[in-house]
Parts: sequence; structure tokens; C-alpha cells
Amino acid sequence: FSIEEVEVAPPEAHEIRIKIVAAGICGSDEHGVRGELKEVTFPTILGHEAVGIVESIGEEVKDFKPGDKVIPLFMPQCEKCFLCTDPRSNLCITSLIGGPGGLLAPKSSTFTCKGKPLNLFANTSTFSEYTVVDEKAAVKIDDQAPLDNIALIGCGFSTGYGSAINTAKVKPGSTCAVFGLGGVGLAAVMGCKAAGAAHIIGVDINTGKFDLAKELGATECINPKDFDKPISQVLLEQTGGGLEFVFECIGKTDTMISAINASNFAFGTTVIIGISAPGSTISFDPMIFLTGRTLKSSLFGGWKGKESVPKLVTDYMEQKFDLNKLITHRLPLEKINEGFELLRSGKRTVIG
Amino acid sequence: FSIEEVEVAPPEAHEIRIKIVAAGICGSDEHGVRGELKEVTFPTILGHEAVGIVESIGEEVKDFKPGDKVIPLFMPQCEKCFLCTDPRSNLCITSLIGGPGGLLAPKSSTFTCKGKPLNLFANTSTFSEYTVVDEKAAVKIDDQAPLDNIALIGCGFSTGYGSAINTAKVKPGSTCAVFGLGGVGLAAVMGCKAAGAAHIIGVDINTGKFDLAKELGATECINPKDFDKPISQVLLEQTGGGLEFVFECIGKTDTMISAINASNFAFGTTVIIGISAPGSTISFDPMIFLTGRTLKSSLFGGWKGKESVPKLVTDYMEQKFDLNKLITHRLPLEKINEGFELLRSGKRTVIG
Repeated sequence: FSIEEVEVAPPEAHEIRIKIVAAGICGSDEHGVRGELKEVTFPTILGHEAVGIVESIGEEVKDFKPGDKVIPLFMPQCEKCFLCTDPRSNLCITSLIGGPGGLLAPKSSTFTCKGKPLNLFANTSTFSEYTVVDEKAAVKIDDQAPLDNIALIGCGFSTGYGSAINTAKVKPGSTCAVFGLGGVGLAAVMGCKAAGAAHIIGVDINTGKFDLAKELGATECINPKDFDKPISQVLLEQTGGGLEFVFECIGKTDTMISAINASNFAFGTTVIIGISAPGSTISFDPMIFLTGRTLKSSLFGGWKGKESVPKLVTDYMEQKFDLNKLITHRLPLEKINEGFELLRSGKRTVIG
Repeated sequence: FSIEEVEVAPPEAHEIRIKIVAAGICGSDEHGVRGELKEVTFPTILGHEAVGIVESIGEEVKDFKPGDKVIPLFMPQCEKCFLCTDPRSNLCITSLIGGPGGLLAPKSSTFTCKGKPLNLFANTSTFSEYTVVDEKAAVKIDDQAPLDNIALIGCGFSTGYGSAINTAKVKPGSTCAVFGLGGVGLAAVMGCKAAGAAHIIGVDINTGKFDLAKELGATECINPKDFDKPISQVLLEQTGGGLEFVFECIGKTDTMISAINASNFAFGTTVIIGISAPGSTISFDPMIFLTGRTLKSSLFGGWKGKESVPKLVTDYMEQKFDLNKLITHRLPLEKINEGFELLRSGKRTVIG
């Protein structure tokens, strides 16, 4: 990343300008840097997981006023379309994100740098002191909310936590495994625990992540490198036929297959949360599903941002979950490259 | 097939000997003939979809007596194991069918032909005047049940019908597509209709199947060969983002991918019912699930045979569905090879 002076134009109709207070560095930003999100159009300002304060509003904006605390929504919601009004989905047809056309919508923005326009990333572009977003792409949160940790509710935490609560619908007393104990995986562990799972197995080749995973709810952690046979086989044997819920939080096709194979052959559900590189394919014998397995996936943990994000903030304020442990480093914007280096070694940084 | 004189030994403890009254020729038998079921051990007697009358019983058998009308269960149920007592599954751990070890259990049987033993197929081997099955592998049905059509409840009908009712849980007013309008596909159409689906699109390259599909509930039928673009694209466009429920009833990996792609990107469920050849693989970009798709599969439509088959027979007697239309030919056992030829041209024969 280069740190540049940019101009942020005033918000137009139905737009708000937000002063970013804190922005998390999330795996999807790293995918963006590596060119692995097909709809990222450079030059751009990355970042999509943040919290901020409304600085000014454009015409026709009714739900925000300057001074409001807000969380930007990389998955906007118009609250009117057939998807926004359908309880089964958290997509919005007025945003291209997740639509048939692709994953993340490109959009020209009001950023300019040395006179040249920059593209908006994931509807939000939060690695900036100020950003302008559509009123659909932000939601007002509690005025009393502390802003130090809740940037994570804007993506990583909610994605992992919701994948257990909403997408898998983990049942009390059930058995779960989480492949990949990064920020999203740890949040999935927290979701499994909140849903009342009896056994939560963390799976990672980085054993340095095990202590925190156990602190957040994992009942045991295993390292696939400790075994001579495939980890799915190990888990099948340990659990008498596989786990009821398995979460893939890495985005690698081989771990997706492992996750499916580790799910219970008769009634196991696998949830793919990790984002794989464009053009990746997974290959498997379809008959591994015939005995009753289910494969699902979701974006942003299945939460509808406009209605759910304020509730998640309230839940956080009521200490229903702890975000502080998910953050290992805090850096100023100038040190963002250091934050990405930390991400690559399994750390989770908040900028701001 | 060769027609041979075989000896059928008397039932041993916990076994019953059944006089087969009628046996359907089902796609899985054809898979067996072609050597596409990895656990078929030749020489064998195929057939697994039938109805008959108990001729004699072995020691310790309590639930059957000579003269009882029964339907053999290719998926046996002990009614005691952790799967039989779990409402989420219709597998039984005491039978290898569907277990981690493979799809269809081989078993030595009491058949001998010219002094040599024959293997039991799918726990039932119903292309025979008599067969001996474990008491777990049959269920008593209503004494008044007419035996002309209900062999199909033993596999094909229940598999398709149940995949809509139990596995997909098709909702009233929903949109469905069924890929492949053979016996199982037509039964899936009937299941979608019984569940109250508003639109049921039949998809087949054999347009000769369309009239019957419409008679049984399809609201429209389309031939992929009539379009220059992939059928999944056609269906996505016709339905504004894809169907709520899609059923693959062919067993080909390319139609499985088409089915997934034709399911609604935000909340579509694809159910794979077709059995693919051993070693087949499907390959796709896992991100096609990220927007909210679900993939499922099931054996025998998710029905637990011991409790559900008698109810399905009663439903048939109360004319809740019509099996007669699913049968195109009736042939004596000597003409079984003709029946398999008919199957290959899309016809459905009952032997007996």
C-alpha cells in the first residue's frame, strides 16, 4: 500500500460521508491485495470492516445525521427488494455483491488522488480517514457504543459467528469442527459455543492459535500435521462417523474437501466460509453426499446488516461475546503495510 | 441376465422367506448390471424394488407370519441403533448401506445355483420367485393393499417423492425443476406437486416424456437441446435468479453441475438423487455456494422404511398419488432382459 493524500468529495444525494474511527484488516482485504477478488478494480482504497462517525450527509438522506455512530455495510441493504424482504437471504439485489454477476461490486467513487479517480472497494473503502458510502451501505448503531473493538462486527466477527448461528444453525449439544483459526474461524468457534455446542474441535497447522481458540470455546484443538492419515479420517474415527457441523474458514479447496469428508456421513452439515481464489474448483465424488450430508455457504454470516448489526453491537455491549481477544495489534493508518504482514502470520490488526 | 433354476434355502433365525409377487426394474439395477455399483458381487440376483407375501419365517421372527404382505427394504432398519433412532437419518448402522464403507452392502445369501452360492444384492435380491431377507429388510403392509403397482414404493417412487417432501422440504408456492424425467424424476415431480409447489419445470432431452410429466404435475417441460446456451442459464433467466428447489435424477456429473447452477443464487437448494458411476467426480467453483445455495442428497427419499413404507401404501390406497402411470410395461420374469432394454429407452417395467 502507498499512503496518499486523497480528496473525498462531499456526499451526493442518498450518500453519507463517514469519519473512520477504526478499521480492521480482514482476510478479504488480503485477497483484494493479491488480486484474488475478481471485481476489485485498481487503483482503489481497500478496507471494508470498520466503525465511524457520520461527518456530513447528502440530500434525501433520512436515517442518518452528522455525529451518528455507524458501521459501514460491505453488503448494502435497500430494505425493499425481493431479497431484502425475504428472510432466507441477506443479499440485496440493488447491490451486485453476491449476485449472479459476481462477488464484490466495483463502483467508481468520489475519491480522487492527484486528480485521478479511485475505485470504491466493497461499497465501503474504509482504509481512509473519510469515506463516502450510499445510505444503504451503513447502519446507525447505539450512541453509547465504545468504538475500540466493534469494527470487527463489520465483517470478520459477524461472518464467523453468524455462520454457526444462522447458516449452520448449530444445535445445543452438537459436535462441531472449525478448520482455520484466524479471525473468522475464532468467531465461528464463538458462534458454536453461543449456540450451545458440546464439542468444538479447532483444526489448524499453526499451534500458536490453540490457546486462544480454547479460551474462546474450543474444547480441543488438533494439528493435521500430527497425523499420518488425512485429518478428515482422524475426525471421522474420533467422532464415530463425523461431526454434525464443520466450518471451513481458510478458503483453500483441499481443506474444503477435508471439511466435507469430516462431516457426519448421515446428517453432517459443512459450511464454507473461506473465500477461494477466482477460478478455483473443488472436485469430489458426489456420492459422498448421498448418505445425507449437506453443503452450505454464506456471506457475512447470513446477517442482514441493517437489522442485525445494531443488535450485535448491543449484544457486545451486554458482554454476550468478547471482541477484544480477537484483536492482537492496533496500528495507525501509516503502518497499514505492517498490519498486512501481521495478518499473514495469523495476527489480527485494527487500524486507527 | 440368464434365467436359472436356483435353490432358496429356508429362512434362518431372524430371516423371512418371501414369495415375490411383483418386482420393478429400477435404474439402480441397471447400474448393478453395468458394474457401476462398486459393492455388487457377481454372481448375484439383482432386483430390490418389490412386493411379496411371506412364505415362511425363521426362528426368533416376531413381526411377520406366513401370508403377510410385505415390501422388502433395500435399506434395512434395526430400529435400535443411533441412526434408526435419530429423526435426521434413514440409514441403519447395522447395514452397511450408505455407511462410510460404501453404498450397497454385499452379503452372501442362501441362494445356490447348480450348487454354487449366489450373492444377495442390496439386501433383497428380488428378481426371483422367492428370496430370503433379514427381518430388518422387510416391512409388513396393509392386508388389503392391492399388489399390482406398489412394488414401486420399494424404491423408485419413494426415492423421488421423498426427495421433494423430506430432503428438500419443498414449500407451498415454490419454484422447482426436475432434471431427468425417468421413474424417479417423475416421482420427484409428484412430490413437488404434493408439497404445493407453484411451478414445476421438467427438464429432459427425451421430449417423449413431457406429456406424462405434465399429467403428473409438471407445469412446463423444456428440452436443453432447444437452446444455444446452457440450460442452467436459461432457467436462471426464466426464473429471475434460479429455482428454489432443483432435483438431479439422472446421475450424470454434468447435469449435477447444471442443477446447482440453476438453483437460486440466494436461497436455492439442489438435491442430487441420481447415482453416478464409481469414481465420478464433480468439479465447480465453490464460490457458487457463497451467495446462499445449499447442496443435499439422500437415499430412498429420506424415508425410514419400517415406519414410512406402510404409511405410503396407505396413502396410495387412499389415492393420494397414482402409481399406475409410472409403469409402462408388465412382463413375466423370463422376459427380464426385454424389461432392461425398455428401461434404457425410458420405460418402466414391473416383473411379475
